[in-house]
Amino acid sequence: MLKTSILKAILIASVAFSGFANADADDNKKYRWKLAETWGPNFPIFGDASKNMARLVDEMSNGRLTIRIDSSNRHKSAFGIFDFVKNGQYQMGHSASYYWKGKDFNTMFFTTLPFGMTAPEQYAWFYHGGGMELMKSVYDKHGIMSFPGGNTGNQMGGWFRKEINTVEDLKGLKMRIPGFAGEVLAKLGAKPTNIPSAELYTALERNTIDALEWVGPSLDLRMGFHKIAPYYYTGWHEPATELQFMVNPEAYNSLPEDLQKILTAAMKLAAYDMYIQSMHESGKNLATIQEDYPHVKIRSFPKPVMTAIKLANDELLLEAAEKDPKTKEILDSISTYQKQVRAWTNFSDRAYLDNFDSK
Amino acid sequence: MLKTSILKAILIASVAFSGFANADADDNKKYRWKLAETWGPNFPIFGDASKNMARLVDEMSNGRLTIRIDSSNRHKSAFGIFDFVKNGQYQMGHSASYYWKGKDFNTMFFTTLPFGMTAPEQYAWFYHGGGMELMKSVYDKHGIMSFPGGNTGNQMGGWFRKEINTVEDLKGLKMRIPGFAGEVLAKLGAKPTNIPSAELYTALERNTIDALEWVGPSLDLRMGFHKIAPYYYTGWHEPATELQFMVNPEAYNSLPEDLQKILTAAMKLAAYDMYIQSMHESGKNLATIQEDYPHVKIRSFPKPVMTAIKLANDELLLEAAEKDPKTKEILDSISTYQKQVRAWTNFSDRAYLDNFDSK
Repeated sequence: MLKTSILKAILIASVAFSGFANADADDNKKYRWKLAETWGPNFPIFGDASKNMARLVDEMSNGRLTIRIDSSNRHKSAFGIFDFVKNGQYQMGHSASYYWKGKDFNTMFFTTLPFGMTAPEQYAWFYHGGGMELMKSVYDKHGIMSFPGGNTGNQMGGWFRKEINTVEDLKGLKMRIPGFAGEVLAKLGAKPTNIPSAELYTALERNTIDALEWVGPSLDLRMGFHKIAPYYYTGWHEPATELQFMVNPEAYNSLPEDLQKILTAAMKLAAYDMYIQSMHESGKNLATIQEDYPHVKIRSFPKPVMTAIKLANDELLLEAAEKDPKTKEILDSISTYQKQVRAWTNFSDRAYLDNFDSK
Repeated sequence: MLKTSILKAILIASVAFSGFANADADDNKKYRWKLAETWGPNFPIFGDASKNMARLVDEMSNGRLTIRIDSSNRHKSAFGIFDFVKNGQYQMGHSASYYWKGKDFNTMFFTTLPFGMTAPEQYAWFYHGGGMELMKSVYDKHGIMSFPGGNTGNQMGGWFRKEINTVEDLKGLKMRIPGFAGEVLAKLGAKPTNIPSAELYTALERNTIDALEWVGPSLDLRMGFHKIAPYYYTGWHEPATELQFMVNPEAYNSLPEDLQKILTAAMKLAAYDMYIQSMHESGKNLATIQEDYPHVKIRSFPKPVMTAIKLANDELLLEAAEKDPKTKEILDSISTYQKQVRAWTNFSDRAYLDNFDSK
């Protein structure tokens, strides 16, 4: 009896004591979370971002919050992440906001847009231009917290078996290009399609498709497309693809404040880190492509082709804005902010790159 | 007596108890640190980076590590930060590595270089291209730990009272441009000088100097230079000025591991955040300049001027590399990495900006 009550007194006292040093009474409670990601196991760069985030949280919280990562091979539903997090089946998800445009069209604007902002421009919009607030206003009604989850950098326009010289060349072109960018090309007569990644190489090799876009050198090299499609076009449709961390709000609110801060900082840091890792891997793999596969020709679409694509894109966005005031609010915010920050990009990095190449 | 010994037992027990949940026995110890920064109090953006870092550490550590920031008005030695941290007078500093080139020439390469990398390129070099390891090899012998401390983004080439049309126009030009970039211009006949920031406006107004560089719209607007020098030139000399957090290694090693991780993550996050904040403030202030001061003309130096400056820069770097094997090692790393990553920048963001402007 004595032993038990002493132990009890010590336990109570120790909780009270640590209460002096820390704001939260239950600060030593351990939280075991699970994150579901869209990607398969060991998917490069994207998968590194979620691992990096979980490692940072584990280290900074001294093991008080640990996050187990389930890849698509485990949870069997690459595009079920939204519902997993909403229902609380998983406390967290790692995916991309534009995958949910079927559920809510307005989720599409928090990943990237054709002819949209570059990665640093878009981060400035998220954190200083009202982007985070708009994303919250869209996700609140779904009961999900959404955060930037890592940027791929500017994506390439894709691998083409034949050169594109005129807008006519787009007519009937069978291209794997999902989402809104596919709709843009469809407006110009192309036949956009989506094909699972495992079947892409064969589809291109057997002329089931004439072209495809994937990401950029960082992830394209391992896919082998350069062996069968010699034209590699520069980008227009995904200038800054930002992945997404999702958090279940009830789970978040159950955390003591310091763990909330640790989690938020870890997500933000892992997102930035992925942008920089993408930059590195792209440079490295581009060098490999250029050295080992000199037949690959990097091209930009001719100006009239680019202009036609841009017009089609503007028309589609205008139509969307007319259908929904929230869409209009988001698109207005993006276009106003982009105009302002782009003027700076043009006078800073862009002018600098020109100055550098003076000869 | 009884009361005291019970209290003692409880104290011992509570320490032992918290030892079960956490790896470090002294995890509730509070660390009170001081940081000395080069900047004055409430200096925008630069000062926000150190405050952001300290706030992140405070919140994530639940107050176990707090960092008091002393600005230059308090410690009275803007360029004494290196010694403050080395001697342990301050546990941390916030400054810029190129300020220490008089102490060790090789510290100069960890801020930015004329015709060097852009901010995301340079972060990729730091974290994936060997930059952090090289910085460590330079700072280890001074007993200082050095980390990226926030990027200004691409800096403008400066405010000029007269247009620069030929290399001849640089001859005798009195310009406030400190450091290595000043040496580059001196090679072409300019008269570089350094003037304290408080006296810059008057010096330019009274023709004591003909031109000056400061930062870019983010910080230039408040200085008022646009009122008296109508030519604003695009940049070449500081494409990605990275500030610096310094930490005293003994102080760092005295921290439990989780606080070390929190501090490291907070510094890295605050550095990225400052880059994005700079992007935002630059865009915003550039818009103000263009709207309110339409007489300001933004120019790039003519190609022959830019080429002459670049040649002078290359010669000076070559001379430096010949004098010191460590300098050569760092410059080789930078130029090899820059060449690789720049190829990607040119095919991604730069080509994209061209595609965007197709009309």
